[in-house]
Amino acid sequence: AARARAVTEAHWFTAAVVTLILANAALLGVETYSGLAADWHRWLRAAEQVCLAAFTAEILLRLAAHADRPRDFLKDPWNLFDLAVVLCAFLPVLRENGTVLRLLRLARVLRTARFLPQLRVVLVAVVRSLPGTLSFLLVGALLLYVYAMVGWVFFGRADPEHYGSLGRAVLTLFLLMTLDGVGDAVHAGLGISRWSLLYYASYVLLASFVLVNVLIGVVLTSLDE
Amino acid sequence: AARARAVTEAHWFTAAVVTLILANAALLGVETYSGLAADWHRWLRAAEQVCLAAFTAEILLRLAAHADRPRDFLKDPWNLFDLAVVLCAFLPVLRENGTVLRLLRLARVLRTARFLPQLRVVLVAVVRSLPGTLSFLLVGALLLYVYAMVGWVFFGRADPEHYGSLGRAVLTLFLLMTLDGVGDAVHAGLGISRWSLLYYASYVLLASFVLVNVLIGVVLTSLDE
Amino acid sequence: AARARAVTEAHWFTAAVVTLILANAALLGVETYSGLAADWHRWLRAAEQVCLAAFTAEILLRLAAHADRPRDFLKDPWNLFDLAVVLCAFLPVLRENGTVLRLLRLARVLRTARFLPQLRVVLVAVVRSLPGTLSFLLVGALLLYVYAMVGWVFFGRADPEHYGSLGRAVLTLFLLMTLDGVGDAVHAGLGISRWSLLYYASYVLLASFVLVNVLIGVVLTSLDE
Amino acid sequence: AARARAVTEAHWFTAAVVTLILANAALLGVETYSGLAADWHRWLRAAEQVCLAAFTAEILLRLAAHADRPRDFLKDPWNLFDLAVVLCAFLPVLRENGTVLRLLRLARVLRTARFLPQLRVVLVAVVRSLPGTLSFLLVGALLLYVYAMVGWVFFGRADPEHYGSLGRAVLTLFLLMTLDGVGDAVHAGLGISRWSLLYYASYVLLASFVLVNVLIGVVLTSLDE
Ligand code: NA
Ligand code: NA
Repeated sequence: AARARAVTEAHWFTAAVVTLILANAALLGVETYSGLAADWHRWLRAAEQVCLAAFTAEILLRLAAHADRPRDFLKDPWNLFDLAVVLCAFLPVLRENGTVLRLLRLARVLRTARFLPQLRVVLVAVVRSLPGTLSFLLVGALLLYVYAMVGWVFFGRADPEHYGSLGRAVLTLFLLMTLDGVGDAVHAGLGISRWSLLYYASYVLLASFVLVNVLIGVVLTSLDE
Repeated sequence: AARARAVTEAHWFTAAVVTLILANAALLGVETYSGLAADWHRWLRAAEQVCLAAFTAEILLRLAAHADRPRDFLKDPWNLFDLAVVLCAFLPVLRENGTVLRLLRLARVLRTARFLPQLRVVLVAVVRSLPGTLSFLLVGALLLYVYAMVGWVFFGRADPEHYGSLGRAVLTLFLLMTLDGVGDAVHAGLGISRWSLLYYASYVLLASFVLVNVLIGVVLTSLDE
Repeated sequence: AARARAVTEAHWFTAAVVTLILANAALLGVETYSGLAADWHRWLRAAEQVCLAAFTAEILLRLAAHADRPRDFLKDPWNLFDLAVVLCAFLPVLRENGTVLRLLRLARVLRTARFLPQLRVVLVAVVRSLPGTLSFLLVGALLLYVYAMVGWVFFGRADPEHYGSLGRAVLTLFLLMTLDGVGDAVHAGLGISRWSLLYYASYVLLASFVLVNVLIGVVLTSLDE
Repeated sequence: AARARAVTEAHWFTAAVVTLILANAALLGVETYSGLAADWHRWLRAAEQVCLAAFTAEILLRLAAHADRPRDFLKDPWNLFDLAVVLCAFLPVLRENGTVLRLLRLARVLRTARFLPQLRVVLVAVVRSLPGTLSFLLVGALLLYVYAMVGWVFFGRADPEHYGSLGRAVLTLFLLMTLDGVGDAVHAGLGISRWSLLYYASYVLLASFVLVNVLIGVVLTSLDE
């Protein structure tokens, strides 16, 4: 256990694992090019098997390092995540489904996060700013709901494609937040009623206000760290 | 009165009212799907009646709670809003108009704001930042007016669709603030005169400056709270 | 002089002048609607004459108020602006040109700025932040020039419409700052060379960095006031 | 050496060099207009030769100024840059290739940066904020990779143009950061699966969060200077 621990805590071990993860990521990327994937089919399969073997060896080493205190191993959520990702790759049920297998191999790439301290800072910042922004998001949801209902009442019949139901109206208004196609929406609305100008102007102003508030809230919290 | 007050101040009462409002909101949302609305017509009507009854019971309870000091009841603007929304639902004139009835039921959803303290913070921030931003908005209105008039003078004849009257020019310039279609406008303008480039460049810079100022003003005030 | 000064410094005089300016602005706006302009032709002309008479009376009053110290009158740049605008309206050469006359009447609307203290704050902020932002603007101009030249060298032959000359390339890159049509430009560029991706990515990042710096510089200076 | 140093440190020398660089820049710009370039072919060639001669004279003067301590000359990276740019213009291999020659002459325009102290501030700010933003950029790269892989798994077959390979998916997602065409992408995605809404919504939120963080990080560092 002590020797295994010494190995897993060494700098070269971390470097090797990161290299392994990046190689695995590159491998996944290469497979998305159907031409390359067909030409190098055998080599890619072999490389995948090597990756899986290396990941298994890594998790076994980590388990060995914690052999004298298994509880500590389970305390770190990353260890649980690693274990689950590797174990799933051996389940016959999952091995048969290509999509699930690919997502599993992609999950191994997410393990990089363990070695990116800044990602933790971002995640902590997002979580800490949640109480402050959650209420803004609630206000935003209320805003979206009310404007979608009003939009359905007034534009539902004339423009069923965009306002035919609550879901469509919410989608339409959500996409307007990107400020893309506001002109088209306003011109279509003016064909129905003059008041639609007030509707869109107030919506864009309120939505951008809520959006800016949420973004600034999260950023300020993350700058505090 | 004392018992009614104890009830209206209990946590479970607030929770029940919020649940009622959310159920009412969901009911309104379901009715926007014409397929569902036709299939479950009877049930939806019944559910609507139950909601109205529950809202009436709630407002009666609140009235009873303030039976010994009716003035306090009228002091809280939310109580007046609740009373008006429920009373209007019983007016025969309004009941006949489907659109008005739907907006009334939507108004009940707005009552959630009473239970969202953060919404009040936002509203207070918006109101407090008004004196500071109002002058910026005035500057923005002056900017919009002057550019619209100049646009009408120079582009009015060549591009009547966008600059045919003061109203159209204001709308065109207002929509340019979303930075959507600036390229099309500039290319159309270059077909008329080279100076239109200066017109659009200065407008976009000034408008975005005023916009950023207004947004930052409101956000800073809201962050102060 | 003393009586005239008392009049020009009274609150009701300021209110009357602002009302006059707004009426003049509304008059100009109404004239942009060709239907209304034709129907009410006579009345609009009469109203314009009344406006001009009132503006002349105002400037004469201000002159009278400064009769004993004409230097002070010339010190305030607004007085010079007002005098110039009113005098020009009486020049026969300018009266014959419809466009110039309209711009003159529009210039009178700009006089509102005299009564908008916030506008002065904005203008002072813009002027004060100029030394800091001017260098950023110079950096931006250098950036635009270099990218336009590189764009002309590499895309000039394949895409003469967007990169056929330095002027066109500058316009194309300037419009890309609105982030509108970046996708089209990148896809067109990829048809020429793979390196165009690097070109556009670096340009958008650098341009938005300079833009954000300029905006924040001006806003921070204006918030200081 | 002392006389040469006195000359290179004089104000008029700096002014003359800046004028020379700007003239060179204007010359390059004029040559992009094929009509002008054909009409004035001889004059432009002559002007180019004059520019090259002047630049050579300048660098020789600077070399002479440092004749007694050549090490100091090599310490300043700008001197090395100037020397390389002028020397390359005399290499026969490079002189034959029009594109390389044009880029060389453009490189001389970059020498303006030597005389723009603000540009150094910006560059220093960008370099100093790199450690802080690099980790955010890493997080952004991980985000882009994971979303591109997920996009390829789910949309790769149905929409090969946008998600046919890892490279295309990364490009598609990179361009979505401009918020241009988000509506089209979402509507296309909804034709494949309802879950694509979650995919795009989470992507836009996370990407804009990372982007805002990077921008604010760089700007704050540059404001500190
Ligand atoms: Na856009
Ligand atoms: Na946009």
